[in-house]
Amino acid sequence: MDIKGFRFSAVEAAIKKPGRKDLALIFSEVPASACAVFTVNAVKAAPVLLSMEHIKGGSAQAVVVNSGNANACTGDAGMIVARETANLVAQGLGISDQAVQVSSTGVIGVPMPMKRIRDAIPPLIEGLSSGTLDDVAQAIMTTDTFPKMEAREAEVRGTSYTVAGIAKGSGMIMPNMATMLSYIISDAAVEPAFQERAFRKAVAQSFNAITVDGDMSTNDTCLLMANGMADNDLIREGTAEGDAFEALLNDVLLSLAKQIARDGEGATKFVEVRVSGARGDDDARLAARAIANSCLVKTAFYGQDANWGRIFAAVGYSGAEVDQSLLSLSFDGVLMARNGIFAGGDAEQRGTEVLRKREFTVSVDLGLGNGSATVYTSDLSHDYVSINADYRT
Amino acid sequence: MDIKGFRFSAVEAAIKKPGRKDLALIFSEVPASACAVFTVNAVKAAPVLLSMEHIKGGSAQAVVVNSGNANACTGDAGMIVARETANLVAQGLGISDQAVQVSSTGVIGVPMPMKRIRDAIPPLIEGLSSGTLDDVAQAIMTTDTFPKMEAREAEVRGTSYTVAGIAKGSGMIMPNMATMLSYIISDAAVEPAFQERAFRKAVAQSFNAITVDGDMSTNDTCLLMANGMADNDLIREGTAEGDAFEALLNDVLLSLAKQIARDGEGATKFVEVRVSGARGDDDARLAARAIANSCLVKTAFYGQDANWGRIFAAVGYSGAEVDQSLLSLSFDGVLMARNGIFAGGDAEQRGTEVLRKREFTVSVDLGLGNGSATVYTSDLSHDYVSINADYRT
Repeated sequence: MDIKGFRFSAVEAAIKKPGRKDLALIFSEVPASACAVFTVNAVKAAPVLLSMEHIKGGSAQAVVVNSGNANACTGDAGMIVARETANLVAQGLGISDQAVQVSSTGVIGVPMPMKRIRDAIPPLIEGLSSGTLDDVAQAIMTTDTFPKMEAREAEVRGTSYTVAGIAKGSGMIMPNMATMLSYIISDAAVEPAFQERAFRKAVAQSFNAITVDGDMSTNDTCLLMANGMADNDLIREGTAEGDAFEALLNDVLLSLAKQIARDGEGATKFVEVRVSGARGDDDARLAARAIANSCLVKTAFYGQDANWGRIFAAVGYSGAEVDQSLLSLSFDGVLMARNGIFAGGDAEQRGTEVLRKREFTVSVDLGLGNGSATVYTSDLSHDYVSINADYRT
Repeated sequence: MDIKGFRFSAVEAAIKKPGRKDLALIFSEVPASACAVFTVNAVKAAPVLLSMEHIKGGSAQAVVVNSGNANACTGDAGMIVARETANLVAQGLGISDQAVQVSSTGVIGVPMPMKRIRDAIPPLIEGLSSGTLDDVAQAIMTTDTFPKMEAREAEVRGTSYTVAGIAKGSGMIMPNMATMLSYIISDAAVEPAFQERAFRKAVAQSFNAITVDGDMSTNDTCLLMANGMADNDLIREGTAEGDAFEALLNDVLLSLAKQIARDGEGATKFVEVRVSGARGDDDARLAARAIANSCLVKTAFYGQDANWGRIFAAVGYSGAEVDQSLLSLSFDGVLMARNGIFAGGDAEQRGTEVLRKREFTVSVDLGLGNGSATVYTSDLSHDYVSINADYRT
């Protein structure tokens, strides 16, 4: 995979504890057109606040990310740490501070050990000569059980370009999921306003399909940098090339989002929740999220219980318009309930067979209109509780 | 405890399985002034739909409740069952169908075994000669580990009256808590419009402090019947006697709500969450509920982890107005964080000691205004998952 003009590095700074790489760097040899979405949580980590400032110019050239400490709820001291980190990286690379994006993930409320970062930055920058994107994907992991990556290629009139992405996050569609970080890099030349619009739409159909509005961590960040070094004819909106770029971006982001949902803390199931027939797409999203967020539904998934009643109850309190006599539900191809009541026959047995699979689809139709939405979720298991009850600051 | 004019009964109808009393009856010898609140879930069980019809006249004389089957998502057949149940009870008692309230709790989507109810109603009515309110409280239990009851007495110019309540529900402040049923009975004579207003206020500060708007089951019901047989001078709003009645009702409902929260499925902790200093009471409620609903916060409670960072993150996504530099948090009397950052010293150790207690308070101040709210919750444990993952329709 060749993404022209990007270099990578990851080193061990021992921010939380030694024995793994925990400080990473992505660098574009030329300034890249950049856009980002950040957490909507009113409590924002220092690196998020700093990155929001720096992205305002629409350009970035480096991203420095650490795991082991979120640098959140650290007050003025935390802001100083974030600024110093950006400054040291900028100086080492010969670029301006504003060209540096900073991210952190890990424990909240513990001061960042700045000396360790300071000492690690020179080797971090040297490492750009030999590091890989995979090194970065591994260094940013926290509770992830595997690194998340995806890449796609396309052409503009014979000139190839690549869109590649990495992510970390071990999430469920639950309040307060583990911090989600994602960095998408491309060597494509894209008209900047179109790049931003395509990016926001892609985030909406991917990461927002595994999170609930407002239920974000203090550190969530998704960033896209496109540096134009493929030297293609500029990609514009409303063209075949523009459509292809949008599709690529959607594919990469959706793949990363699904990987995050599959790696849900303690997850044993990966479930696609499809709602159709809602009064509108907003209603469909409300219903889908209520299903995906319901502890009783998620524990039923874990228990391999074809429990359609709990799913109808979740739809009923979701806030979507509902006529219970029009509801229907299937697990994969097995119809469990129609017109709000049990479908009968051997549906229970066949439904239970579906629930025994590692991945399946729940389809609910509200029978009221054309609104639809899809979200992805995992189950709620004993291991989720173990992982999160044992976590210590 | 003497509540004039009320009689009680509970029998075994073996609705789900034999071996316990599962059909109960409360009867007032004279029609009682009645008011109720029902689930806001758009998917409502047949008994809820029927009871909503019957309560419109502001009067009730009997309540028949079964456990083992929720008679929800049972379509037209379910409505027929609910109507027939009311009719048989009404005939047996010599009252009109409209005077009968019907409730069910248990599994959703399974047809009610009407023959068993039909056969059990004659003995149910006979049992009124010797049954107790406690018999009813036990017959309505599902996943409860203990029956919930509370009673208070007061006087109006030398004439005593009683307010007594029972409830079932093994809840947490989580989406889709187990069905909550509560019946408050009194022999007081109360001016009806005042009775309704006092009741709604009492429900708001009690059951709504252990639930989240919209996150109700298909069957939740809270009913108040006051039959006037204490023969006191009519209790009116804006009088000392009216204030005393309101206070009694609040006490009884709050006590029942706390008992439900303490019996949270798999709960090992009972936590009072107090939010102060919000921009308004609505904001305080948003923040308090986000804290009480957060899986990461609740697993931290279970793990006895004094994790204030997760609580601040929940406040941050709650939708309340937040200035993170003004947030403070205490566990009981131990200040953990002030001005958005760690309070320092030995707070971590002292905070952990608080978390080891079975009951404690989490106090969060937003530093923006005078809004406040209190909610009650429990932790999220391995047992919650076990109880709900093993549940079969």
